[in-house]
Amino acid sequence: MFSEMQSAELDRIAAGTHITYAQKGETICHRGDPCTGFHAVVYGQVKLAFTSPQGDEKVLEIIGPGQSFGEALMFIEQPYIVFAQALADTMLLHVSKHVVFAELDRDHGFARRMLSGLSRRLHGFVRDVEAYTLRSGSERVIGYLLANVRNGAAEPQPKVELSAGKSVIASRLNMTPEHFSRILHDLSAAGLIAVEGRSVRVLDLERLRGGA
Amino acid sequence: MFSEMQSAELDRIAAGTHITYAQKGETICHRGDPCTGFHAVVYGQVKLAFTSPQGDEKVLEIIGPGQSFGEALMFIEQPYIVFAQALADTMLLHVSKHVVFAELDRDHGFARRMLSGLSRRLHGFVRDVEAYTLRSGSERVIGYLLANVRNGAAEPQPKVELSAGKSVIASRLNMTPEHFSRILHDLSAAGLIAVEGRSVRVLDLERLRGGA
Repeated sequence: MFSEMQSAELDRIAAGTHITYAQKGETICHRGDPCTGFHAVVYGQVKLAFTSPQGDEKVLEIIGPGQSFGEALMFIEQPYIVFAQALADTMLLHVSKHVVFAELDRDHGFARRMLSGLSRRLHGFVRDVEAYTLRSGSERVIGYLLANVRNGAAEPQPKVELSAGKSVIASRLNMTPEHFSRILHDLSAAGLIAVEGRSVRVLDLERLRGGA
Repeated sequence: MFSEMQSAELDRIAAGTHITYAQKGETICHRGDPCTGFHAVVYGQVKLAFTSPQGDEKVLEIIGPGQSFGEALMFIEQPYIVFAQALADTMLLHVSKHVVFAELDRDHGFARRMLSGLSRRLHGFVRDVEAYTLRSGSERVIGYLLANVRNGAAEPQPKVELSAGKSVIASRLNMTPEHFSRILHDLSAAGLIAVEGRSVRVLDLERLRGGA
């Protein structure tokens, strides 16, 4: 969102922004915390997740460098309904809501960029609801791999780096870690992929696409 | 969204708005259709839903009078990923995206109202994902009843009008119609509610709240 801004605009926003660091495993926001602005990840990785009354955890999103969270809550004055926890050592910018609101009044382009950002998130959640409710486990895994293929069609056997640990990705895809591992194993046995630690080599992109 | 507008603003928007009618059962938008603006429901009711490759249907949202859909797609220039179908005879206003974009440049308040609206939708979807993945069927049904109680605490035994047919509401809550009926039956047997056709009388609000 910051990339298209003018320097005067960046100066004004910088005045309401502070840098925070979170160590791997540290909680950045708890459920119920008030939302005083939004957080942008500079480096590292943050998971947004819920915990059920029974203690089960569900990962809603994995936020990486250049991505942000908390914007929607800022506009509707609601507390956090997820918690945010660092998956790696992370540097964040916290942009206070007063600065955002002042900038919205000053700059139409800023409002449009925020509207686009929120719309993209909304669209992503709608796709997630579709996948959780209507797609099988293996369709969800194949969809995840295809969405994360590096350089798409450029390489004949492209590589996918798993962006987080298997249990986090499994929860993101709404399945148990065991189910996720079983599907990776079945896709390997079928000659579609080869798992090498935390990276996955796609051996047959066409057939993998056909299975999604 | 229109309620706070000035008359000059309403005139400008009216120029890019047209009225459409849809009969019960009629499809308003198909998956894959381009999004040329957003739709606001004046009277009637619209469901937004997906169909799986196997033909299963999942209701994402039920849109009633005063509510709207299509805003997010308008900002990210993506085609519809759901389809929209009238659940009753419905009157809609279609507001073209050109008018919305022109008004955003003219009026900060309009941008803020759109940001709030999208944020509220996003928040709603996050709650849905939480409920689908971490709440039991009966917790989801009780949550739905409590959210739709008329006049909340005013009446000792308040009534809930089911906003659509049981199969639509069941799909909205991500369960089969049989499962939904069974839960209503169990809650009735426990003396918490009494089902009277398409309305539900809450007999014991406190105990119902305790079960959610």
